[in-house]
Amino acid sequence: MAPTAPRITAVDTYDIRFPTSRELDGSDAMNPDPDYSAAYVVLCTDAGDGHEGHGFTFTIGRGNDVQVAAIDALRAHVIGRPVDALCADPGTLNRDLIGDSQLRWLGPEKGVMHMAIGAVVNAAWDLAAKRARKPLWQLLAEADPQWLVSQVDFRYIADALTPERALALLRERREGAGQRTAHLRVRGYPAYTTSPGWLGYDDDKLTRLARQAVAEGFTQIKLKVGADLDDDLRRLRAARAAVGPGIRIAVDANQRWNVDEAIAWTRALAPFDPYWIEEPTSPDDVLGHAAIRERVAPVRVATGEHVQNRIVFKQLLQAGAIDVLQIDAARVGGVNENLAILLLAAHFDVPVCPHAGGVGLCELVQHLSMFDYVALTGTTENRVIEYVDHLHEHFLAPVAVRDGHYTAPTAPGFSAAIRPESIAEYRFPDGSYWADHPHEKGAAA
Amino acid sequence: MAPTAPRITAVDTYDIRFPTSRELDGSDAMNPDPDYSAAYVVLCTDAGDGHEGHGFTFTIGRGNDVQVAAIDALRAHVIGRPVDALCADPGTLNRDLIGDSQLRWLGPEKGVMHMAIGAVVNAAWDLAAKRARKPLWQLLAEADPQWLVSQVDFRYIADALTPERALALLRERREGAGQRTAHLRVRGYPAYTTSPGWLGYDDDKLTRLARQAVAEGFTQIKLKVGADLDDDLRRLRAARAAVGPGIRIAVDANQRWNVDEAIAWTRALAPFDPYWIEEPTSPDDVLGHAAIRERVAPVRVATGEHVQNRIVFKQLLQAGAIDVLQIDAARVGGVNENLAILLLAAHFDVPVCPHAGGVGLCELVQHLSMFDYVALTGTTENRVIEYVDHLHEHFLAPVAVRDGHYTAPTAPGFSAAIRPESIAEYRFPDGSYWADHPHEKGAAA
Repeated sequence: MAPTAPRITAVDTYDIRFPTSRELDGSDAMNPDPDYSAAYVVLCTDAGDGHEGHGFTFTIGRGNDVQVAAIDALRAHVIGRPVDALCADPGTLNRDLIGDSQLRWLGPEKGVMHMAIGAVVNAAWDLAAKRARKPLWQLLAEADPQWLVSQVDFRYIADALTPERALALLRERREGAGQRTAHLRVRGYPAYTTSPGWLGYDDDKLTRLARQAVAEGFTQIKLKVGADLDDDLRRLRAARAAVGPGIRIAVDANQRWNVDEAIAWTRALAPFDPYWIEEPTSPDDVLGHAAIRERVAPVRVATGEHVQNRIVFKQLLQAGAIDVLQIDAARVGGVNENLAILLLAAHFDVPVCPHAGGVGLCELVQHLSMFDYVALTGTTENRVIEYVDHLHEHFLAPVAVRDGHYTAPTAPGFSAAIRPESIAEYRFPDGSYWADHPHEKGAAA
Repeated sequence: MAPTAPRITAVDTYDIRFPTSRELDGSDAMNPDPDYSAAYVVLCTDAGDGHEGHGFTFTIGRGNDVQVAAIDALRAHVIGRPVDALCADPGTLNRDLIGDSQLRWLGPEKGVMHMAIGAVVNAAWDLAAKRARKPLWQLLAEADPQWLVSQVDFRYIADALTPERALALLRERREGAGQRTAHLRVRGYPAYTTSPGWLGYDDDKLTRLARQAVAEGFTQIKLKVGADLDDDLRRLRAARAAVGPGIRIAVDANQRWNVDEAIAWTRALAPFDPYWIEEPTSPDDVLGHAAIRERVAPVRVATGEHVQNRIVFKQLLQAGAIDVLQIDAARVGGVNENLAILLLAAHFDVPVCPHAGGVGLCELVQHLSMFDYVALTGTTENRVIEYVDHLHEHFLAPVAVRDGHYTAPTAPGFSAAIRPESIAEYRFPDGSYWADHPHEKGAAA
């Protein structure tokens, strides 16, 4: 039998849900009882090398099945693709998925369908990095700038960032990349922690966890706010007392406010020196963020975890609406679109501090920031990746945070793979956990 | 047995697809081969009065199943609701659906999940209007202004429009409502037609249909553009020659361009006096539309059919980015959100010219414009509803366009119901049409 080029042979999907609402981990002013979940996808090949591509969309419970259905709707675009071509150019897959005119109607480039595209595209990058035997950050950092630019879809952003300018930004940063890689391997990338600040925690737990965070080497923590101003003032006072004046405390309203409320509430919190106010209002409101930023300085304005695509990020930057840009590895259309967003941020000189937490978001997004440091902005100044210390045990290559820094991953791939035994336990509704806790299914379904 | 208050007993969903791609009806620069489809929902009750609530999301084929899955995910919020309370206050259903914190993560308020909410909310309004024995436009036009304001979610728009201002706008227009209703019943609401201008039609068909449109009483037609400039110039010249200088010709690029391209292309078309350029770029690009508008005047800028929610419409108005606001009855969160958008447009004094066509979009959106005329803006000046003359035969109460005007519906409800025999024929993949044409399923699925 003649040898044939290996192809993608299967796109397997899984509805995986963790019952996090039991402990109020992850509780905030908009999301009181999330069940952290993953609409999970595995690309299988007939290459015979044992490599699969893993990706997922993060959700918080109900609707994870809708997200799985959206990934399933992309299957016909992926099955049969030659693996070598896919891994050499994930950008073509990205363009083909975004360009399906019938599916595009369901967005375009936003919400369920776009996140599904992100899961599949990220799975392709995971496969590409595994086959290259490199962690994704290293694959990206060592890539030819011209090739990186070819991976970006400039449609709708070319008025702010041209391919030529993107190429120049990447070429400028070739110098010193080796030194930065060496530094990254030794020191890691700065992190901040949200673990002390969930809204469902009482003040004692908040204070204890805040002190613990400082002891562990973090120089920034984050508190959820926005449900009740008196509570927020009390909690922020307690946190400030616990950590002292030298530690940055970010606050996060999770889109709870109108523009005017955001301004008044943030000003009321200002005496406790919050470092940034995160998601003060709707992620869709570019002009609203600009108005808020103008009125709450010197408190910085941060957003991005729910920003739907590069086009809205472009406008947030054009309008001078944010001080801190928060990419999310699994909200937009995958690595390719996040390359566009990192390039936009670099062009506008706005620091990127990624959103993470959830299920596996820390595992994914660290790769993007490490690429940014080595090959794009060349700095970690005023840049930190969010860290939340739960659910990592379910990953085959979990993040390692030491002394307030993410350790550079060494395992090939995008760190996206969930352990098979965790899938067997938390697959919804038939995994062993859910089978053993039938009374909890109603809340999650 | 004691009588009990009637409740919603079932939320039935249907994946309905029409094979429109065979004839290139609906073809444009972004959507070369749509199969017009509906993710269709029926609310059933135990009231015993024979009334059901019908609603749908319009899609163009693939992914209609994802949209159905999203409507299914809302079922638990709807089953068991008391029918009287639901019909007296659909706004509570609207808020509850948007407020589900776990499902909200999949948007928020955009894309698949938000359109699903729109379908269910619109079905509730259909039920309310049927039980009130009024066409929806009349129910809205006769409603108490205070109650109408209570139906609007002002979250994220209160910086541009307060409930007080909305109430004042509605109260101002009480005077003369009776006369306008009488005029509407006699004359109808002005329409324009897109039927001549699909990109897949040759010049002869375009010319013939353009002349026919004028003969039928239309004073505005629309052409699809954006694939090839020379083709567009030729087609626009042919259309202008066919209709003469007194007829408005709108052109529609269906998001094909970057900002700079949109400006250059529109200027190139300007000698043929296009009335508006529609969807020149991404519907997400508020600042882009503002830049385009500044550079292409006197050609007007129109957008809205893909604008995801009231928050983006608010910004388009705040930024002075559009001359014409195009609501769509089935893209946003239903009647309640469209009330917010109509109020915003009235406040900013920008005319609303709805998007229609597709499957049943004409049937739905006519009610919103007629309400706007009778009870909100009081005028049809520079306002036209899009009309496309296909697929109406599948509706129980199809639109009637006479002498270039939509006739005011008289049947109770929202005109959303598709004929049972059409559902049986076009239900995907098991309806009789698809069973008889198995070779076409691959393209649609």
